[in-house]
Amino acid sequence: MATCITDIPRPEKTTLAKFQGAGVATVHEALGRKGLMASYMKPIFRPARIAGPAVTCEVTPGDNWMLHVAVEQCQPGDILVVSPTSPCDDGYFGDLLATSLHSRGVRGLVIDAGVRDIADLTEMGFPVWSKAVFAQGTVKQTLGNVNVAIVCAGQLVNPGDIVIADDDGVVVVPRDVGDEVASKMKRRLETEQETRQRLAEGELGLDIYQMRERLRRSGIKYVKFSAENE
Amino acid sequence: MATCITDIPRPEKTTLAKFQGAGVATVHEALGRKGLMASYMKPIFRPARIAGPAVTCEVTPGDNWMLHVAVEQCQPGDILVVSPTSPCDDGYFGDLLATSLHSRGVRGLVIDAGVRDIADLTEMGFPVWSKAVFAQGTVKQTLGNVNVAIVCAGQLVNPGDIVIADDDGVVVVPRDVGDEVASKMKRRLETEQETRQRLAEGELGLDIYQMRERLRRSGIKYVKFSAENE
Amino acid sequence: MATCITDIPRPEKTTLAKFQGAGVATVHEALGRKGLMASYMKPIFRPARIAGPAVTCEVTPGDNWMLHVAVEQCQPGDILVVSPTSPCDDGYFGDLLATSLHSRGVRGLVIDAGVRDIADLTEMGFPVWSKAVFAQGTVKQTLGNVNVAIVCAGQLVNPGDIVIADDDGVVVVPRDVGDEVASKMKRRLETEQETRQRLAEGELGLDIYQMRERLRRSGIKYVKFSAENE
Amino acid sequence: MATCITDIPRPEKTTLAKFQGAGVATVHEALGRKGLMASYMKPIFRPARIAGPAVTCEVTPGDNWMLHVAVEQCQPGDILVVSPTSPCDDGYFGDLLATSLHSRGVRGLVIDAGVRDIADLTEMGFPVWSKAVFAQGTVKQTLGNVNVAIVCAGQLVNPGDIVIADDDGVVVVPRDVGDEVASKMKRRLETEQETRQRLAEGELGLDIYQMRERLRRSGIKYVKFSAENE
Amino acid sequence: MATCITDIPRPEKTTLAKFQGAGVATVHEALGRKGLMASYMKPIFRPARIAGPAVTCEVTPGDNWMLHVAVEQCQPGDILVVSPTSPCDDGYFGDLLATSLHSRGVRGLVIDAGVRDIADLTEMGFPVWSKAVFAQGTVKQTLGNVNVAIVCAGQLVNPGDIVIADDDGVVVVPRDVGDEVASKMKRRLETEQETRQRLAEGELGLDIYQMRERLRRSGIKYVKFSAENE
Amino acid sequence: MATCITDIPRPEKTTLAKFQGAGVATVHEALGRKGLMASYMKPIFRPARIAGPAVTCEVTPGDNWMLHVAVEQCQPGDILVVSPTSPCDDGYFGDLLATSLHSRGVRGLVIDAGVRDIADLTEMGFPVWSKAVFAQGTVKQTLGNVNVAIVCAGQLVNPGDIVIADDDGVVVVPRDVGDEVASKMKRRLETEQETRQRLAEGELGLDIYQMRERLRRSGIKYVKFSAENE
Repeated sequence: MATCITDIPRPEKTTLAKFQGAGVATVHEALGRKGLMASYMKPIFRPARIAGPAVTCEVTPGDNWMLHVAVEQCQPGDILVVSPTSPCDDGYFGDLLATSLHSRGVRGLVIDAGVRDIADLTEMGFPVWSKAVFAQGTVKQTLGNVNVAIVCAGQLVNPGDIVIADDDGVVVVPRDVGDEVASKMKRRLETEQETRQRLAEGELGLDIYQMRERLRRSGIKYVKFSAENE
Repeated sequence: MATCITDIPRPEKTTLAKFQGAGVATVHEALGRKGLMASYMKPIFRPARIAGPAVTCEVTPGDNWMLHVAVEQCQPGDILVVSPTSPCDDGYFGDLLATSLHSRGVRGLVIDAGVRDIADLTEMGFPVWSKAVFAQGTVKQTLGNVNVAIVCAGQLVNPGDIVIADDDGVVVVPRDVGDEVASKMKRRLETEQETRQRLAEGELGLDIYQMRERLRRSGIKYVKFSAENE
Repeated sequence: MATCITDIPRPEKTTLAKFQGAGVATVHEALGRKGLMASYMKPIFRPARIAGPAVTCEVTPGDNWMLHVAVEQCQPGDILVVSPTSPCDDGYFGDLLATSLHSRGVRGLVIDAGVRDIADLTEMGFPVWSKAVFAQGTVKQTLGNVNVAIVCAGQLVNPGDIVIADDDGVVVVPRDVGDEVASKMKRRLETEQETRQRLAEGELGLDIYQMRERLRRSGIKYVKFSAENE
Repeated sequence: MATCITDIPRPEKTTLAKFQGAGVATVHEALGRKGLMASYMKPIFRPARIAGPAVTCEVTPGDNWMLHVAVEQCQPGDILVVSPTSPCDDGYFGDLLATSLHSRGVRGLVIDAGVRDIADLTEMGFPVWSKAVFAQGTVKQTLGNVNVAIVCAGQLVNPGDIVIADDDGVVVVPRDVGDEVASKMKRRLETEQETRQRLAEGELGLDIYQMRERLRRSGIKYVKFSAENE
Repeated sequence: MATCITDIPRPEKTTLAKFQGAGVATVHEALGRKGLMASYMKPIFRPARIAGPAVTCEVTPGDNWMLHVAVEQCQPGDILVVSPTSPCDDGYFGDLLATSLHSRGVRGLVIDAGVRDIADLTEMGFPVWSKAVFAQGTVKQTLGNVNVAIVCAGQLVNPGDIVIADDDGVVVVPRDVGDEVASKMKRRLETEQETRQRLAEGELGLDIYQMRERLRRSGIKYVKFSAENE
Repeated sequence: MATCITDIPRPEKTTLAKFQGAGVATVHEALGRKGLMASYMKPIFRPARIAGPAVTCEVTPGDNWMLHVAVEQCQPGDILVVSPTSPCDDGYFGDLLATSLHSRGVRGLVIDAGVRDIADLTEMGFPVWSKAVFAQGTVKQTLGNVNVAIVCAGQLVNPGDIVIADDDGVVVVPRDVGDEVASKMKRRLETEQETRQRLAEGELGLDIYQMRERLRRSGIKYVKFSAENE
């Protein structure tokens, strides 16, 4: 049952480039409000923002052996995504594994479990999104799987999918829709930039989005405050 | 059922001024240990400290349409307080709405739900206290209410009530007791300043507060450690 | 039932010195993966790292009177460890008590309850690990115990035990095994330093730890990705 | 600050009668989807269903003294609603207080805290909705308030408001809209009864509610399954 | 984006028959310790045990419109599996929808959200596994998807997958491995029956599973209790 | 590090007899409001009530091997108390282990982790108090300890301590104070029985406990309701 799949397909470099610097909220909207991991996934330091293809790793509770197998499958620019087969907050990952991933050019870690040595990781500038911070150690006794489809914090992740993570959380874009999502994202950002400018100058969203008529039709009533309201 | 109440009463400027720079713990004590929102309300960045009159907004789950209506009711110095009709962690509020509130001189947001774009909000210096950070977007389809009484994180908030928020959380002072609370707060701070000085110099609380006799009467026993204690 | 035990034994200065600067994850490993407090114990600011002997304090819910008794039992270098008799998130501890402990040379506070005034504590540089941040005040009416054995965040703590706390959490080392644990910790750190160097240079954990043969025997299969895998 | 308000107004007997046997979900809909307490409020046994006017009681953490004051204010048919000033799971209420309330004809207890002796309460048939079951005892040292407005599990409750509780949870109807809500509820139940009959006979909601056209206009697409969908 | 996929493939009747009466723990073991939904999925009454093919439904927060579309796609013996696009505890499902599903021969509901009218559902004997019980109502305004792949309580569910639910929780078996899993399950049950008999007669697991030698080699020490152990 | 301590001391039969049928709340009061496990420890069926000496077992996350070692140390009347070294909700215990314990006359299980096969355990009448119900299986690869001191759900448990569990939760009485606690419990129950009788007859706690004068001195005010109160 323990398999390590090698030579996974990754998105084109040009596709990946479009997601560098992108925000999770924006990508999530461009993807049709899908793909978000659970809100308990938190960065260990802020600000942090990364994007790259997923190398996936399935581990058993309290056992981080398979992470060492996964490291070898990582290439520069990748993001390692880890999920245990049953819920576990143990600290699967610390400064030694981070040193190893860092030396291989890996951009960061997303783990639906615990992480430790966060002072060292912070100093090293190696970003991690995790469910918990917990010094509890793990053993190296049981196999798992590398580069199979996993569910991480409520989202399906296939190896090679594009992972984007920032201070708001983590979103996953299926590999084959990367360019399409990037295009929608670009249009969205352009519109937003214009809107932001108008809002900054004091114009109201009610006017910019022409909401007043729709609100009226929906039945909103404006009433002046009086003591009886209270 | 959808109402936007306008022209709400706000406390006097002189009253509000007394709360600028005040700490939540101090206000809460001066108010008789009341008015605190639940401890899950966290600031998105620290340190942060604001005070101002509440503009209240009730939204439906996953729908932030009513926030746009609320923005128009906000004046410089106000704090927008938002609560959903059923629990929801979605990201109702992001950098565009923050830009709009900021341009109107609003001091910050208190929301019993999720917020997103927190890297942008942090850079902008716009403080938010929220239940969650979550990139999950919302729609604009259902009406709610603006400036009605709401329950936010366990506390009743009326429009015009004074909201104070800092790194410890959020407290609400009913509009009509603002001056009274401010007076108690002032006396409290003066006493504390004197006590702090004495504590800093090494004097014990046991002596400053004259607790030794009361402890003795309550039955405390001082016993020297011995191996049998263990 | 209310007792304050005085003159507790503390570990030797030379023993304590060995733990200054030590990380929680390392100590926990050296102790045989024991002694960790629950992962909900969080520092109020980061980075923070302290070590010292425990003065223990058992309080009743919503009542911090006994903290004042505990303060007098603290010596320079100590760490105050507090646990309520039933779960409570109230803010037992704020800037006044911190000022008092600070003036006595106490290194920090570990409390399985709430803390407040965290902006002040942060500015003061007084580290606290707590279950909650909550401005809710407490009273001074009921006695508890000082320097008895307590369970704090799931761990038994005896007065004089060595407490180590950092960004990862809190670990407790029984007083009588301090030197033994410190020795194991030292060996561990030396090995890790060497390993870290090799990992930083790009060598793989699979090779450093000679895992390949053991993985093969455990039945791992390496399979090249193909569309059918998907 | 400690007040016990006596002679509170209660709804008319005829109004109250309309809510006997009513379900929480139905009342909540008739009230415009408002008034629901948090979903953590659970009955200690099932099935259970009560309705009656609220006698409210505000207690301090770990102290149930004020419950004894509240008991005297209860009349036959009342429901006692209790909330602590800061979150507390202690067991404020057990078989002795239940015996007392029961002998006065009180219908049940709603408490945003803990309860104990639930085996006895179950045997006695005295229904309780609580946040926790916890044997942790309380003291009788601090005053609170009886029959003031309280926030219980996220809802404002005024003395004399109508409380309805069943296996789904607890809902609060403001005293002055009791008859209006009861009328809406009646119409709702009549419609539902007819719909239930049609659904039981196999008719589809899509047809009964004439949803097909609206779905089509909203853009739904019906697609036959094919392997490529997968 | 709103699609309803019709004519989904279902497992063979003979395959499905093998899972009737099967326990979740047994299936989960036979599947290689995979496929379990999160432990927060609880039955509304006990005992309850069902198995059948999944009809899947993706809903938006606070909106149950799509459930009515899903009902029409259900056949006798099916299980409806529902997941919201962002976390929501609202009561999407009550006695009317249950009446409709029941009349179509649907075996039960699995929903990663809230359910209401549970007293009625219990009386009706219609089993539901849900994340919450909450009377909070939903609207019918936004489309979702029927019979697409969804993630429900942390597990990927494809339409036609075999869902087994009992008092322990919910497990999902991919459609194409149904027979294989059923065979393993059968062998497992036979072995267990024999073991159960021996254990009931007082034989020890240590002997039945021949663990003594392996324990000895792993380094276990048996030590007689003495006061110093304490 | 893996030890199984045999021949542990147990309380006298006469001492244990005094706790049969005792309620957790009563024992906890008689013990001076100490010894309660966390309120998340729930019985798998109700009503359930047991008392007996603890056999303790420390397990590693996701590994139940040591339970088989513990079974052999159990005698008729014992209660097995299990705690993992790091938090884990996996189902360590199911119907086979229950059959084994049952055949040895063990009274029940207390486990700070998950349990499965609860339908079978319920039918068998074997009571379990656990943190979770979860079908997730465990392995048998790592040793732990039997009959050492453990912390279970926040309480220190030594082998031979008296464990009492009922619908309210679980309490632990240190072995050497069993008789003393039993005496206090007896007196408490006698007083309560008398009080219960008076309460049942309609007498008020305010009078029975002579609280009226103390309330008055503490400053309570009785105020008749008026519209202005509102």
